[in-house]
Amino acid sequence: MPKTDLESTASDHYAAESEPWFRGALGKLVEHATVSPGGGHEKEIESGAIAARDLIRELGGEAALVETAGTPAVTGRFAREGARASVLIYNHLDVQPADPGTWTRGTPFRFMIEEDRERRFLYRGRGATDDKGPALCALRAAAYAAAQKLPLDIRFIWETEEEIGSPHFGEAVERARLAADYVIVSDTIWPSAKTPAQSYALRGALQGLFRLRTAAKEAHSGLTGGVARNPIRELCLLAAEIHGSRFWQSGVIPPGPEEITSFMQSGFDPEYFRRSFALEKLETEVPLEMMLRVWARPTFELHGLIGGYMGPGLKTAVPPQAELKWSFRLVNGQDPTEIEVALRGFVAAVNPDVEIVVTGSLAPYTGRLDGAVCAAVREGMTRAFGSPPVPVREGGSIGAVAILAEKLGAPVAFLPLSLPEHGYHAPDEYFDWRQAEGGIRAFAHTFAALAQGPDRQPPTR
Amino acid sequence: MPKTDLESTASDHYAAESEPWFRGALGKLVEHATVSPGGGHEKEIESGAIAARDLIRELGGEAALVETAGTPAVTGRFAREGARASVLIYNHLDVQPADPGTWTRGTPFRFMIEEDRERRFLYRGRGATDDKGPALCALRAAAYAAAQKLPLDIRFIWETEEEIGSPHFGEAVERARLAADYVIVSDTIWPSAKTPAQSYALRGALQGLFRLRTAAKEAHSGLTGGVARNPIRELCLLAAEIHGSRFWQSGVIPPGPEEITSFMQSGFDPEYFRRSFALEKLETEVPLEMMLRVWARPTFELHGLIGGYMGPGLKTAVPPQAELKWSFRLVNGQDPTEIEVALRGFVAAVNPDVEIVVTGSLAPYTGRLDGAVCAAVREGMTRAFGSPPVPVREGGSIGAVAILAEKLGAPVAFLPLSLPEHGYHAPDEYFDWRQAEGGIRAFAHTFAALAQGPDRQPPTR
Repeated sequence: MPKTDLESTASDHYAAESEPWFRGALGKLVEHATVSPGGGHEKEIESGAIAARDLIRELGGEAALVETAGTPAVTGRFAREGARASVLIYNHLDVQPADPGTWTRGTPFRFMIEEDRERRFLYRGRGATDDKGPALCALRAAAYAAAQKLPLDIRFIWETEEEIGSPHFGEAVERARLAADYVIVSDTIWPSAKTPAQSYALRGALQGLFRLRTAAKEAHSGLTGGVARNPIRELCLLAAEIHGSRFWQSGVIPPGPEEITSFMQSGFDPEYFRRSFALEKLETEVPLEMMLRVWARPTFELHGLIGGYMGPGLKTAVPPQAELKWSFRLVNGQDPTEIEVALRGFVAAVNPDVEIVVTGSLAPYTGRLDGAVCAAVREGMTRAFGSPPVPVREGGSIGAVAILAEKLGAPVAFLPLSLPEHGYHAPDEYFDWRQAEGGIRAFAHTFAALAQGPDRQPPTR
Repeated sequence: MPKTDLESTASDHYAAESEPWFRGALGKLVEHATVSPGGGHEKEIESGAIAARDLIRELGGEAALVETAGTPAVTGRFAREGARASVLIYNHLDVQPADPGTWTRGTPFRFMIEEDRERRFLYRGRGATDDKGPALCALRAAAYAAAQKLPLDIRFIWETEEEIGSPHFGEAVERARLAADYVIVSDTIWPSAKTPAQSYALRGALQGLFRLRTAAKEAHSGLTGGVARNPIRELCLLAAEIHGSRFWQSGVIPPGPEEITSFMQSGFDPEYFRRSFALEKLETEVPLEMMLRVWARPTFELHGLIGGYMGPGLKTAVPPQAELKWSFRLVNGQDPTEIEVALRGFVAAVNPDVEIVVTGSLAPYTGRLDGAVCAAVREGMTRAFGSPPVPVREGGSIGAVAILAEKLGAPVAFLPLSLPEHGYHAPDEYFDWRQAEGGIRAFAHTFAALAQGPDRQPPTR
């Protein structure tokens, strides 16, 4: 790993010495079960936000809770007189629900430290990689920058509603009067554990429920079958019609030749992808086709069906009602509002008795890779990880990104630290010290680059 | 109601006086939660069978439990020296599962007696009409026949596995060494509360589960969606393909003109049908089309989908596996073995990764309406209910019927007493005294007719 100057050697040393602090801080955050609002974990979100606030304060930053109509966000700041620039780092403290029965290592909200075969520390627990670990990397680097008296105003916003689409994030941004020259978002992944990546686009989403009620109680499938309308069957037929239709696949702006070239350099490895997500059967095993499907094409997914008999074996009644849970991911060129209108028209034509409940809607985000903050992140990641990050898209969605870009009018860069193997939203989620140490270094170098001010020329390499 | 002779007046009087006995006996049976085997109610089946055996003994019959590899059946007999004929009455003691939360009147296994607006007693509880009430009508009439020293050998077989397809019924018939000149099955319904009906055909069935596993754990729909195979989506697509295909609709022998004429005389009332089954939306409201769909056409139903997120709201993970519960009802001309072969071929072609588990298979049954036992039932029902029963088909399935016909080599007649409003398999199930009193009378007159021996000419009217 090239060490280009004394400054970088010092910050690298600082990062390497940060492991005891990091494990302690991550353990504190993970053990608050900050499952996104709506699932009855509001108290843990509150206590987790307070713990996060206190971690910022312990490192010498200012910190506060920002109340909203939802659950609070946490803001932090390492301000400095005469700062040449200001940067806001975005992370989130809320986590996906976790069923302890599906975890094979430990349990979701008990922090557990392991060592893997390569003697790499693994930090296991829900939220370790999504997104508490990356938040702490940025925090630790900010404390270092402050200690070095870098002329940079570093701010944090850690929200608690990311996993439910950030419904009150705009309110939090306004209440906290956030302002910054640059925004860095650290909540995406590298396609490969070996090749650093710099995300620049996110998929959007449209999600909700289809509900159909055809009777007041369940009916005997012999005595009524053929005349009774079966809501499970009708919702399956509707889903199949949607799957086969074009309305949600229209408007897509496909990636250009430069993007494709970049994808091919990302180190994407089908076998690593398959293994990381524990997939046994794939839609395709052609690497480019896999990247295009996850990063650059819309999807229509079904997530669960409530209704009828849900126990073991069989009960042959015709159920009176059913609810099908679905989501679309949308990509560059698609507008969730237009897709929703098309969906409502399509469903009304196919089965007008179906009620549609839209629970979330989010535009796809396509950012830029030019400009000072992207260059600084690129420099920081290059110094930290030894090779320049490859531009890639991200298959996931982060509601806060478009809100930050719009409300702050500032350019957004992504500094991803998570890996597919870490298990975003999955059982046995973990973060690892190699990515954490690199993350602290990457942020430290990024801050150093930004502290040189907006007029600085990006390094040539 | 015409009283044609002294004998009928006496048996009618006997039936009318039987209400206190009937409510006591039905209460005893209903309060044993004899939910079919497989659901952990085996002890209640055992105690319910003992209670049923004791009821037969209390009325002077012989009775015994017949052990099988499954749960026991109950046999009963009112034998008589010099009997001119023997008749076996089939009923079942097992009941469908019942979720107390869906019952709006009382609770499934607490017997409750109400009076409706027409001062008709309603006997509420799971199994009241399907099939404990009808069983007791036949039993009460047999005791009367025995007291009258009718030269008839009356036998009973009450099984406890009807609702799961009678897997050990053939074994019970053999162990009990059942033999009879005639069989009467009392487990079907009238289409109308006003018009007595005589069933002569049952739908068959083929039922089971589709299972699909595509991963070892759930996956993030953003990070993997497009490449991860979604088992819920694939099972919905498969179901839609099956729904639209012809293989399960082939071979049907449609009802002839005489049958259609008879259907039209059955008193079938779309509004009564709709209200009885609490249906809010129907596939069709054309009366003949409704009858044809329920009685004479196959169906493909979906009963539940296990997999993914089954709580409130939405979680957008791609689930690792899913199970879809389905059944076909089959009609005259269709062979469940052939349909199963076709199904397996179809699924293998559409989605070879789907595992098929067939949990039940039953041929459709089409009986005859000529012969002594059908004539006797017709006479009995006519005397009891004031008008001759109209021949109708039945949409449900009874696995025991074909077994009885085959093993005993005896003609089978149906003597239905239940009504759509009684709620077969539904919440708030009940039986009523008008049907019970009529049932006791109908069986008493049927026994009287059969006791005249096989050479007797059926009455002309």
